[in-house]
Amino acid sequence: MKAFMNEEFLLTNETASRLFHEHAEHCPIIDYHNHLSPKDIFNRRRYENLTQLWLEGDHYKWRCMRVCGVPEEFVTGSAPEWEKFYRFASIMPRLIGSPVYHWAHLELQRYFGITTPLTAGTAKEIWDQTCEMLQGEGFDAVSLLDKMQVKILCTTDDPADTLEWHEKLAADAALPFRTLPSFRPDRFLHIDQGAWKTALKQLGARYGEVTDWGSLLQALRRALDFFCAVGCRVTDHGFIHFRYAVGNAAAVMDKALRGEALTEEEIAVYQGGLLRFLAEEYTRRDLVMQLHLGPIRNNSPRLLASFGPDAGGDSIGEATDPFALSAFLSDIDAAGHLPRTILYNLNPADSAMLATMAVNYAADGAKVQYGAAWWLLDHIRGIGEQIDQLMETGLLSGSVGMLTDSRAFTSFTRHEYFRRILCDKLGTLVEQGQYPCDMETLGAMVEDICHRNAVRYFGF
Amino acid sequence: MKAFMNEEFLLTNETASRLFHEHAEHCPIIDYHNHLSPKDIFNRRRYENLTQLWLEGDHYKWRCMRVCGVPEEFVTGSAPEWEKFYRFASIMPRLIGSPVYHWAHLELQRYFGITTPLTAGTAKEIWDQTCEMLQGEGFDAVSLLDKMQVKILCTTDDPADTLEWHEKLAADAALPFRTLPSFRPDRFLHIDQGAWKTALKQLGARYGEVTDWGSLLQALRRALDFFCAVGCRVTDHGFIHFRYAVGNAAAVMDKALRGEALTEEEIAVYQGGLLRFLAEEYTRRDLVMQLHLGPIRNNSPRLLASFGPDAGGDSIGEATDPFALSAFLSDIDAAGHLPRTILYNLNPADSAMLATMAVNYAADGAKVQYGAAWWLLDHIRGIGEQIDQLMETGLLSGSVGMLTDSRAFTSFTRHEYFRRILCDKLGTLVEQGQYPCDMETLGAMVEDICHRNAVRYFGF
Amino acid sequence: MKAFMNEEFLLTNETASRLFHEHAEHCPIIDYHNHLSPKDIFNRRRYENLTQLWLEGDHYKWRCMRVCGVPEEFVTGSAPEWEKFYRFASIMPRLIGSPVYHWAHLELQRYFGITTPLTAGTAKEIWDQTCEMLQGEGFDAVSLLDKMQVKILCTTDDPADTLEWHEKLAADAALPFRTLPSFRPDRFLHIDQGAWKTALKQLGARYGEVTDWGSLLQALRRALDFFCAVGCRVTDHGFIHFRYAVGNAAAVMDKALRGEALTEEEIAVYQGGLLRFLAEEYTRRDLVMQLHLGPIRNNSPRLLASFGPDAGGDSIGEATDPFALSAFLSDIDAAGHLPRTILYNLNPADSAMLATMAVNYAADGAKVQYGAAWWLLDHIRGIGEQIDQLMETGLLSGSVGMLTDSRAFTSFTRHEYFRRILCDKLGTLVEQGQYPCDMETLGAMVEDICHRNAVRYFGF
Repeated sequence: MKAFMNEEFLLTNETASRLFHEHAEHCPIIDYHNHLSPKDIFNRRRYENLTQLWLEGDHYKWRCMRVCGVPEEFVTGSAPEWEKFYRFASIMPRLIGSPVYHWAHLELQRYFGITTPLTAGTAKEIWDQTCEMLQGEGFDAVSLLDKMQVKILCTTDDPADTLEWHEKLAADAALPFRTLPSFRPDRFLHIDQGAWKTALKQLGARYGEVTDWGSLLQALRRALDFFCAVGCRVTDHGFIHFRYAVGNAAAVMDKALRGEALTEEEIAVYQGGLLRFLAEEYTRRDLVMQLHLGPIRNNSPRLLASFGPDAGGDSIGEATDPFALSAFLSDIDAAGHLPRTILYNLNPADSAMLATMAVNYAADGAKVQYGAAWWLLDHIRGIGEQIDQLMETGLLSGSVGMLTDSRAFTSFTRHEYFRRILCDKLGTLVEQGQYPCDMETLGAMVEDICHRNAVRYFGF
Repeated sequence: MKAFMNEEFLLTNETASRLFHEHAEHCPIIDYHNHLSPKDIFNRRRYENLTQLWLEGDHYKWRCMRVCGVPEEFVTGSAPEWEKFYRFASIMPRLIGSPVYHWAHLELQRYFGITTPLTAGTAKEIWDQTCEMLQGEGFDAVSLLDKMQVKILCTTDDPADTLEWHEKLAADAALPFRTLPSFRPDRFLHIDQGAWKTALKQLGARYGEVTDWGSLLQALRRALDFFCAVGCRVTDHGFIHFRYAVGNAAAVMDKALRGEALTEEEIAVYQGGLLRFLAEEYTRRDLVMQLHLGPIRNNSPRLLASFGPDAGGDSIGEATDPFALSAFLSDIDAAGHLPRTILYNLNPADSAMLATMAVNYAADGAKVQYGAAWWLLDHIRGIGEQIDQLMETGLLSGSVGMLTDSRAFTSFTRHEYFRRILCDKLGTLVEQGQYPCDMETLGAMVEDICHRNAVRYFGF
Repeated sequence: MKAFMNEEFLLTNETASRLFHEHAEHCPIIDYHNHLSPKDIFNRRRYENLTQLWLEGDHYKWRCMRVCGVPEEFVTGSAPEWEKFYRFASIMPRLIGSPVYHWAHLELQRYFGITTPLTAGTAKEIWDQTCEMLQGEGFDAVSLLDKMQVKILCTTDDPADTLEWHEKLAADAALPFRTLPSFRPDRFLHIDQGAWKTALKQLGARYGEVTDWGSLLQALRRALDFFCAVGCRVTDHGFIHFRYAVGNAAAVMDKALRGEALTEEEIAVYQGGLLRFLAEEYTRRDLVMQLHLGPIRNNSPRLLASFGPDAGGDSIGEATDPFALSAFLSDIDAAGHLPRTILYNLNPADSAMLATMAVNYAADGAKVQYGAAWWLLDHIRGIGEQIDQLMETGLLSGSVGMLTDSRAFTSFTRHEYFRRILCDKLGTLVEQGQYPCDMETLGAMVEDICHRNAVRYFGF
């Protein structure tokens, strides 16, 4: 029996162990997609305790607490911080097999050197020890990131954002890493949602009034120029339904501005038009386009009413329409406007479809990538599935690897989680005689996937 | 090499073995969903031979026989009982890797103490031995259930049912377990099927004539009251298509009563209205709502014509629409009418969607559960997949565990099958260092999943 | 650690090893579906080098090269043959975990006796050695097939084909195997595609002018008679969308001939009508019907424009509609026109649906089969998934086993790949105590799946 989460965690053979410890473990981190607050980074935000660090904004943990029957008061409510932490500690043993269980213990180990399993019985001791440590050196936001060897961070930002904190971060010479904005025009794509008109107004206020299709495109172009000036390399787009059609997007926009209801087809025409425009602008600026496909959001009306979005009421939605996706990628490819693109799925029924679709557009290498296991798939089996798909039908060795997608400053052990699974997969193939035991090639491949491929792909 | 299906069957490590033998093996059985005949229980039905016990109503075995080329005469036809058994025994070796193969041998072992593999060569010996044993003590329906430590049985019953046998069972003081009816209003939901009008008439005859929406609801309320009086704790609903819409259900019902054809949308409006009504009534009566999603039925016109439904011509159908399901759960949750609910899928492409959807509504603990591997997924890999999904994105330790879904009195070794797989999953995590070797916590968790969670959840 | 791809490749236990080496390894090959050129067979085509043998038409390898960033010039372009081979060799180490990696090395081992891993460093040595060997005895098309013990080949042919080369092959007494045509009427089914009218003309030129539904059926009947006279036993049909409806197909065809656009429903009516007609004709002639479901083709407009179809721009498409498929199979079964049928899926989300649908129509044994892992699923995990599905819900022991689906004369090690995975699955069940260690039964089962079942099923 292996000891609990020791240095050989998830490594089942000698080759895997060597690949991890000699190659993956010490690679710098390029976190090209997350939801960190640039303000918190700039301000070297400090945390008094694990509740602030872990429970303030982490809907993964909230879901675990709720499903264990912890009342909302101790989840997102007004209970004292210690009590919230104690409730979380108390449910930990029930989370067997959950990535939240592994993540929390990896974080205790790597950031605090604590190897004791977290339970109701150890909660006080761990609370006290971590509270004390958090007051000392090395626990502000920047130090936490630096401890994990983070070199690049790409946050997620609305086109209308002032990027005030990014500008400050860019001017801060003391930082051991770069923090770059990502352009995420979701509010502008989702013409059928309430936030669309607000988004137009906010964008208009910064980049010239948006009254129609032409002025929208002009304002978005200006926003993109500004993002690029502040260092943006990546864009992102989230879809509940991925729709795509070719038609008169300007007319659809006029109709929406007049307050008239749109048909599904009209929404597809608008979104198709805007996506084609964006792809062209991204290509011109050499930006990477990310597509996040397949969640279903705000399912719990209670949580939405009491808390708002991102409360933990989101889950896995529909399978993506391969014909719509292919039509979009084909149209922009034919026009010479296919940027480097990463496809992420939340519904695992899409994994094989997306992994093989990406390779159709591989003209310049792994230009269109099948992205890392996302959100509710970010667990051992889900990560393994993404790695398997890439090996079987794509190109694992060309993959840009992992990202955190997190709002928390201690989530960076998720890269370690991925790296252990990756090294175990590769090591196992070697042990089984499926690949020669050529440690030089394998070691370089591991380093590429953990670090170098991302540097090259995003142009950092 | 491990011996064939010995006491360590499916247990691959020491921790798994201890969890099974010290905790799971002797837990009582709460079988909260099956299709047993209450009449057969009350009458202590006896079986003369394995053909009566195994082949009389088991469409799993029929499918195996047909796909092996056994003529229908020996499957559901008029061939002598010994010949039917001999045909089944003869195909057994061909069923390598099938749950039917494992189930049959577990049943021979547990009920008859026979460890010889069943083949054409051993058929006669096993037939003779079991025929003799079946004449002796301990082989009537009640004894067979008692031998497996069954404590609660929930059968499946139509709202118009008299529950005559359930009432007799309730009055039978000699029984070592309770048999409760389940309320399954499928015929009333499926307004587009021929059985709907018959169902209305039969319900009307017991609970007041059904002439419109109002009288339907009134009759269903009375039926529910009666079911509850006889001990009902659980309801069940099966869907080929899960449709949901909000609208004038009463008007749709009037149209159907006039014999006019309904559109898909109208069916969705009617079903949505009836489901909302039922959810409210269930919540009021503290009943659990089960939803079985995704089969496609009666695919073989030959079998349907010659035998009727449940002949073995059913299989895996469409993936469930997450938006329809979310809309239903959200509407009843917002109205305060979300009962404890269990979601079962037949299409494995739905597993991750349903497992994560359930957690959206987890406000009072694992209120909405992702249910056990169902029917054509009830095999080692399918059971493992359900356990994995719960660990990764739900709460395995809060699961209400297994059920038989069976029509046969010897199917209760399916609980053992599940328990072995469960213990092996948990033991393996410990062996791999993914969880501390805390046998007290693990043992309690196993007992919860195998027994206690169901007692609590259903309120037995 | 196991040596790289040695004789125990993919065999993880003693039972698996015995099953493979004593039973599977030396079984003759019945390759009932491939895309080989009968002309190349008849002409005993020779190859000067591995580029001609491997890279001339293999879109699997092209995809790998493109995703590794190899310029199209070295993929399908005009670069010298040695340079193309060198580029392919150079990317080989990057293809870890890919079936292309395993296939290439199995081919080097079995056809050339080369066990050195192919890399940039070994490319020249392997090129020289193989070039020399290819000039000698045993490397023409017929010898390559004979070396693998191929006994039957079924190519893929259009109904309008003259089958000139098949007739020559049938008359060639020196051949150690039979080459039979397969009837693939795809161009006639896809009334919505440009090739339809051309197909009608070509068919009409051979079998009587096609001016309407009646003359189409008549011409197809004549074509079928001719195919059967030349030895055809198998038919094949590929679907991007599987549509099915009952209606006036003749009227739809008239409309299409007038050049009018068809609705989705009309296409379904035409395809449904033609499929029913074909199923009846196949049943009459005792032909097997194959359905290949779920690709999405020609996604890359660049590849389509520069190269045409089958360029490597195809991938995994939509999940198949189970209701359409069931309606089709049920209608022809009810009419007594259900031929032996094999269902193949490209979208893995369909695996369980198709595997269980097949068994619904099992009246005469495994008449409707769930077919081997196809194309982008033809890898260790995909093959394992097909075997698992068959064991869990179908009948592995009745399966007709593997096929190459290939255009290359050295792809026949794909049968070995499948056989190793099959033997490992079965051996593992025995080692785990899930099945008795009855080597006689297991050995016969392996030989059935690898060889005898196909002989019986197709009537060779």
